[in-house]
Amino acid sequence: MARPENDTFLRALLRQPTDYTPTWLMRQAGRYLPEYCATRKRAGSFLQLCKSPALACEVTLQPLARYPLDAAILFSDILTVPDAMGLGLYFAEGEGPRFERPLREEWEIRNLAAPDPNAHLRYVMDAVAEIRRALKNSVPLIGFSGSPFTLACYMVEGGGSEDYRTIKTMLYSRPDLLHRILDVTATAVTDYLNAQIESGAQAAMVFDTWGGMLPEWAYKEFSLAYMERVIANLKKTQDGERVPSIVFTKGGGQWLEAIAAIGVDAVGLDWTTDIGAARRRIGDRVALQGNLDPVALFASPEGIACEAKRVLDSFGQHSGNSGHVFNLGHGISQHVHPDSVTVLIDTVRQYSRGFHGAFSPPG
Amino acid sequence: MARPENDTFLRALLRQPTDYTPTWLMRQAGRYLPEYCATRKRAGSFLQLCKSPALACEVTLQPLARYPLDAAILFSDILTVPDAMGLGLYFAEGEGPRFERPLREEWEIRNLAAPDPNAHLRYVMDAVAEIRRALKNSVPLIGFSGSPFTLACYMVEGGGSEDYRTIKTMLYSRPDLLHRILDVTATAVTDYLNAQIESGAQAAMVFDTWGGMLPEWAYKEFSLAYMERVIANLKKTQDGERVPSIVFTKGGGQWLEAIAAIGVDAVGLDWTTDIGAARRRIGDRVALQGNLDPVALFASPEGIACEAKRVLDSFGQHSGNSGHVFNLGHGISQHVHPDSVTVLIDTVRQYSRGFHGAFSPPG
Repeated sequence: MARPENDTFLRALLRQPTDYTPTWLMRQAGRYLPEYCATRKRAGSFLQLCKSPALACEVTLQPLARYPLDAAILFSDILTVPDAMGLGLYFAEGEGPRFERPLREEWEIRNLAAPDPNAHLRYVMDAVAEIRRALKNSVPLIGFSGSPFTLACYMVEGGGSEDYRTIKTMLYSRPDLLHRILDVTATAVTDYLNAQIESGAQAAMVFDTWGGMLPEWAYKEFSLAYMERVIANLKKTQDGERVPSIVFTKGGGQWLEAIAAIGVDAVGLDWTTDIGAARRRIGDRVALQGNLDPVALFASPEGIACEAKRVLDSFGQHSGNSGHVFNLGHGISQHVHPDSVTVLIDTVRQYSRGFHGAFSPPG
Repeated sequence: MARPENDTFLRALLRQPTDYTPTWLMRQAGRYLPEYCATRKRAGSFLQLCKSPALACEVTLQPLARYPLDAAILFSDILTVPDAMGLGLYFAEGEGPRFERPLREEWEIRNLAAPDPNAHLRYVMDAVAEIRRALKNSVPLIGFSGSPFTLACYMVEGGGSEDYRTIKTMLYSRPDLLHRILDVTATAVTDYLNAQIESGAQAAMVFDTWGGMLPEWAYKEFSLAYMERVIANLKKTQDGERVPSIVFTKGGGQWLEAIAAIGVDAVGLDWTTDIGAARRRIGDRVALQGNLDPVALFASPEGIACEAKRVLDSFGQHSGNSGHVFNLGHGISQHVHPDSVTVLIDTVRQYSRGFHGAFSPPG
């Protein structure tokens, strides 16, 4: 299986030279696109959309039909893994995700087991394979999972939370139980990502949405250590290609050095971190992905262009290697106008050329 | 007016030697205390409690009657200033604070003016004076304000927000309007804190609750610069004593060097920052306040003691100067058991003695 025709994204992750800064957007297949809303309506619910390989494939491709994006990302939910563990994922109207059977009792935790992704998460693997066929090797497909700690948050709390009091109380009072959950979940996440790779995913991203609400020592012990284990056990593709990995801890800007040291190819940055400062701290070791404030997409076209250029200027010249994947610092809002994304992507594509190859930096 | 009998807190802020690490807790007069709930019920509402100097004084003193705390903090709300600007603060049942007249139109912003704190915020100054009388110089009284940017968030959004889209859209599209709001608000905050100092406040704290959701460049331009202006214009007490200042930006751990450089005496740390790492970064310039995870108070007594010691161990030995004020990394939760606070404060008081003076560090 050859590399995709447009391999700019993969090259940037591996810090190889590129002609421009590749771009994709977290949650790029989402509610800001009317065509997404139409497919979702047809599916009946968000969960049915996730569980239908044909419809998941359809929405994955929608943003690529509109914009010159450099990667596709599997359309799915981060909570498919705990759902496959038997916790019973559902979405209450107007609320976030919830589990029918959150993990609370010690015996439930002792009984927790990693699911076989090719059985219980077959629909995800089928979606990956179908998307790869539909992409016809145009751009690479990113597979993903929630981080073990982030999944554990939802599994223990039973849904979102303001202060994650239940899981944190477990962390402070019964760390052995939390470690047991994370141990099983890390195995499940590893198996899940490897099955996605076997089905055709060409890069692997781990979303650590909630690790950033931990104290530093607890982040390292309960979130980062388990992501390290996942990354260390990722397989190569069937053709023997190494699959680049990205770890993104929202709110993890204070810990970039530690994240860069776990063996990942790229570190995701939320919008609070200055990407130039991050490059000086860890950019000689890993690629960086990010980090426009998603709310900047509500600005005027001039404002959007200004903020996109600010990120590119801050990262600076790509001397020798490249190592920057342009993205938002968090998922795109459902209220963004699709034309604003056009402004953003055109700006990055055009303006970033000046930072690459034999060109001089602009300005 | 003499220094308070227990001036440990003031000495720590000025990095002078102390016998132990002084402690107070953000939101120490709050709903976790049954006596607070009783007074609040008597007041009728939270806002009436804030606006009654006698009742505000009563609840300010309640935690000091229970625990050997080293400072009192004025009981008030951070939104009293915009309320005095005419925005109409109210609390909807079960929701957070809201403004009847949020700032949206350009003419409203042009007309915004800083209120005279001795007229429109007389009730706060009366509370400060009454608390000082009631404290009888036992421990110092902290005055406080929200940061200009944090107040502007509420003023523009009209209340809390998930993504602060309205104010951020103004920031990205009409920065001149936001600067106008911040200019007036910084003057209002300065006047407000100075009136508190004139009425008897012995330390001044600025709470920057929302600065941490900005990109670094925007944090510096729209939040930190205005806090710097406030700090630079704080008065001395009527006896010519310098009033130590504390700035706390929640989520500001990446920017500690910049915060420490604005002329403050102490920098507040939320629970995500390792206080030992923070001390190595900025502890030779300022005192540090914090930073136990408030959720650690839900652990067992052993767990609470372990986490309190972890913070003290991380800060380490206080050689020569002290410079640590123990606190939570955020306000105490209403669901904490009052006995858990006893465990915390006793642990800090006892264990920290080993870090001070001629003693050797424990362990």
